[in-house]
Amino acid sequence: MHFCCHCGGGLTRRVPEGDTRPRDVCDHCLAIHYENPKIVAGCLVSWEGRVLLCRRAIEPRRGFWTLPAGFMENEETTREAAVRETWEEARARVDIDGLYTLFNLPQISQVYLLFRAHLRDAQFGPGPESLEVALFDEADIPWDELAFPVVRETLRLYFGDSRSGRYPFRSGDLLRAADGSDYRVRLLEIS
Amino acid sequence: MHFCCHCGGGLTRRVPEGDTRPRDVCDHCLAIHYENPKIVAGCLVSWEGRVLLCRRAIEPRRGFWTLPAGFMENEETTREAAVRETWEEARARVDIDGLYTLFNLPQISQVYLLFRAHLRDAQFGPGPESLEVALFDEADIPWDELAFPVVRETLRLYFGDSRSGRYPFRSGDLLRAADGSDYRVRLLEIS
Repeated sequence: MHFCCHCGGGLTRRVPEGDTRPRDVCDHCLAIHYENPKIVAGCLVSWEGRVLLCRRAIEPRRGFWTLPAGFMENEETTREAAVRETWEEARARVDIDGLYTLFNLPQISQVYLLFRAHLRDAQFGPGPESLEVALFDEADIPWDELAFPVVRETLRLYFGDSRSGRYPFRSGDLLRAADGSDYRVRLLEIS
Repeated sequence: MHFCCHCGGGLTRRVPEGDTRPRDVCDHCLAIHYENPKIVAGCLVSWEGRVLLCRRAIEPRRGFWTLPAGFMENEETTREAAVRETWEEARARVDIDGLYTLFNLPQISQVYLLFRAHLRDAQFGPGPESLEVALFDEADIPWDELAFPVVRETLRLYFGDSRSGRYPFRSGDLLRAADGSDYRVRLLEIS
């Protein structure tokens, strides 16, 4: 950010009076430009014991498999965002069963909220951001071709829970190693 | 928003190609300025059966009582945000027991995440955004002087759950009436 969105003035990165963090502050009108984490909402969609995955048509991680999920929009709820993203990316109509995982990704200032959901019917297909969409049995999940750690961890939890048929809400943090090579899971809370 | 934060160009509100929603798009560099919901994180802090409330020193709802909570910052987790806000507003050091409520407030594009927590010791006091901070027994909660519906609903759930001593995670939507006079609770999910 270089310019104030209110008056077009130049911005300086500094700690405003009474604040504790550096912000982009307008040199002219003194407006403070806050930036906050984004929510990514999506669905782990099941159908007859299989799970719906989308192969990404866009960067990052083009060609890798993911759960349908994306940035929550203003004026919607987390459930509405998850259902919308599932339609946009997988052309699937779903009913939500419940919130399943909340993962903090502090290094990229995102909070993932993934819901369990099921297809209303066997209809689905790639939206503009997907190359293909398919249902996978647990044995066929492409573990080495998953797009993001949050997808891997949620699928891992899901298939573990499927043994008991109980899917408690879980939350935790996904922390990248300093060199970006790996990640670890912290604080996995179960309700 | 009137000016592009990247190049200082003028903004036009329109639906970008391939999008479905109106955004502020720069006339000059074509940058799209997305706006997304904000997370408000906070704590329902207990100490010897009482609950910690803060009387707000700032607008909106100056003079009314609230739970310590505020906007989550970049590069922190939801728990870290809740603990930080509790320190900033109530000068209280807490340990988190678990995530308790998630409320969507779509009309103001906020998602509240409130954690149950307990004081480490009996020390607390007003931070710069609070007029006073106090512990309340259930019988003394100032129900008619609470700042926000989300505070009222979370306290109501909490004292209900305190009968059984079980505090499941709950999520729902708080929807304002069109004239802003009242609100209703929708979709209260329990894990």
